[in-house]
Amino acid sequence: MKIAIAGAGAMGSRFGIMLQKGGNEVLLIDGWKEHVDAIQTKGLQANFNGEDITVNIPIMLQSEVHSDEKMDVIILFTKAMQLEKMLQDITCMISKQTKVLCLLNGIGHEDVIEKFVPMQNIYIGNTMWTAGMEGAGKVKLFGNGSIELQNLGKGQEEGAKALAELLSASGLNAKYLDNIHYSIYRKACVNGTMNGLCTVLDVNMAGLGLTTPANDMVETIVKEFASVAEKEDVHLDIEEVITHVKSCFNAETIGMHYPSMHQDLIKNHRLTEIDYINGAISRKGRKYGIATPYCDFLTQLVHAKEQILGVK
Amino acid sequence: MKIAIAGAGAMGSRFGIMLQKGGNEVLLIDGWKEHVDAIQTKGLQANFNGEDITVNIPIMLQSEVHSDEKMDVIILFTKAMQLEKMLQDITCMISKQTKVLCLLNGIGHEDVIEKFVPMQNIYIGNTMWTAGMEGAGKVKLFGNGSIELQNLGKGQEEGAKALAELLSASGLNAKYLDNIHYSIYRKACVNGTMNGLCTVLDVNMAGLGLTTPANDMVETIVKEFASVAEKEDVHLDIEEVITHVKSCFNAETIGMHYPSMHQDLIKNHRLTEIDYINGAISRKGRKYGIATPYCDFLTQLVHAKEQILGVK
Repeated sequence: MKIAIAGAGAMGSRFGIMLQKGGNEVLLIDGWKEHVDAIQTKGLQANFNGEDITVNIPIMLQSEVHSDEKMDVIILFTKAMQLEKMLQDITCMISKQTKVLCLLNGIGHEDVIEKFVPMQNIYIGNTMWTAGMEGAGKVKLFGNGSIELQNLGKGQEEGAKALAELLSASGLNAKYLDNIHYSIYRKACVNGTMNGLCTVLDVNMAGLGLTTPANDMVETIVKEFASVAEKEDVHLDIEEVITHVKSCFNAETIGMHYPSMHQDLIKNHRLTEIDYINGAISRKGRKYGIATPYCDFLTQLVHAKEQILGVK
Repeated sequence: MKIAIAGAGAMGSRFGIMLQKGGNEVLLIDGWKEHVDAIQTKGLQANFNGEDITVNIPIMLQSEVHSDEKMDVIILFTKAMQLEKMLQDITCMISKQTKVLCLLNGIGHEDVIEKFVPMQNIYIGNTMWTAGMEGAGKVKLFGNGSIELQNLGKGQEEGAKALAELLSASGLNAKYLDNIHYSIYRKACVNGTMNGLCTVLDVNMAGLGLTTPANDMVETIVKEFASVAEKEDVHLDIEEVITHVKSCFNAETIGMHYPSMHQDLIKNHRLTEIDYINGAISRKGRKYGIATPYCDFLTQLVHAKEQILGVK
């Protein structure tokens, strides 16, 4: 299959490597010139479960995509705020048959994607794989993971199952889920609490969990997510989700990690995805007439911090 | 007049120096042992509008107050969270005639004071004087200021006016106000926005003002204060108060300063007064059945930050 990975950061690189190993014709597409140059001249260097490997894999700058060659599958792995520009740049690769799978963090990306792709070809999912960027052309890939995905288009269940099989055939451990929105909201609750709070407070997840107000803040935010989800017929089990979110506080598992937003903003002074997590809940809340003050305030605080740090 | 200054930090020291110069019998009372020792052995050292002076002024540790000597006036100048302990320690100096004037930042202190002082003897006010602590026994006092005050007890207007005259006779420029609660709420709106936001975001007031979300955050918080004040028959002119608050953003006047809470927590790792500013609005909001989510969340964030920094 011809598969394009649109957004070839750490996670996109993992998918590219694994799908190419699995026998597919893979093309990476990215907007970071140094990264593209490095992979074109030296190959993609990866520490893969402890082993240093170099993979020759095609990659091109998204601004140089002019191909009339259509893709069978495009997997979207950009940062949320880069999604629309990416879709503009790769439109020429999207045919009426191209399946587009969105594995971005956050919620509401379909609103952007459907401007470029017919709904029947859009698939969304969550990935539980991890990956880290070590520098231009260099990634670190550890551990195991899985993928859940579903069709957005009506009657496209078979297409979703076929897509899951395609990914699983390359070891990506994907499965079809019949309630992906539940799963996406549940994951967004983790990001909507840990990311913003740890970023604003400059603390890791275990450190946040040790503070007295952590539980109340988490519960209030999760309830805002749940109220909005309810309006989309997604009925979150609030207690279960809160317990799931609080498991991030465990210092013996992942608690000592800083969430990706903290790495983006505080460590690397990059823009955050807050508009696609808490900010999306605020927008949807306004649309549905639901107050979401904690999401509103957290979004404002993170944007203020971006501007204070001079991030553009 | 026998005047005790309960809480002899920078501002209490200013009042003590000026009231003693004005011919009163002043006693400073404080809980910081090094500060008390320094003043007892070397006098109170002050840079007073650029001139270095040393003032011999009585001071004692609050834990050593056992006097049966009653005071005519006690001026409360502790940090908010130290108020109750101070009142316990100095109870023996409070007679049925002792006027107690509270000039602390924040709102709702009368709830604590009235446990120790009959309402008819309680006076509250705002001070616009400034003062800085340079170290144990050493303060820096610049510029001019003024005081507004009012009686809390019914029919005690004459007492309030006499108190204002007493302070003004020592150059403290005090005046009686017939709506001190308005003035206190208006000032609390400044503290309730600048203090918490600049502390959580680690930025000065001008820097906060340059961020896109600053205006919305300020407006939402001021409206929460106004809703609570309304329940106490204080009708804030919201537009005027918001304009007043935003004047803090002006880099040419006070914008380059970090608010006191930032100095307390981020610079000096001390506990903040958040419970007596936004936290007081949250408590009053619960009492009156008014939602105050921004004040709730800001109070939680500041407490979380205190704990993350290990401040006790």
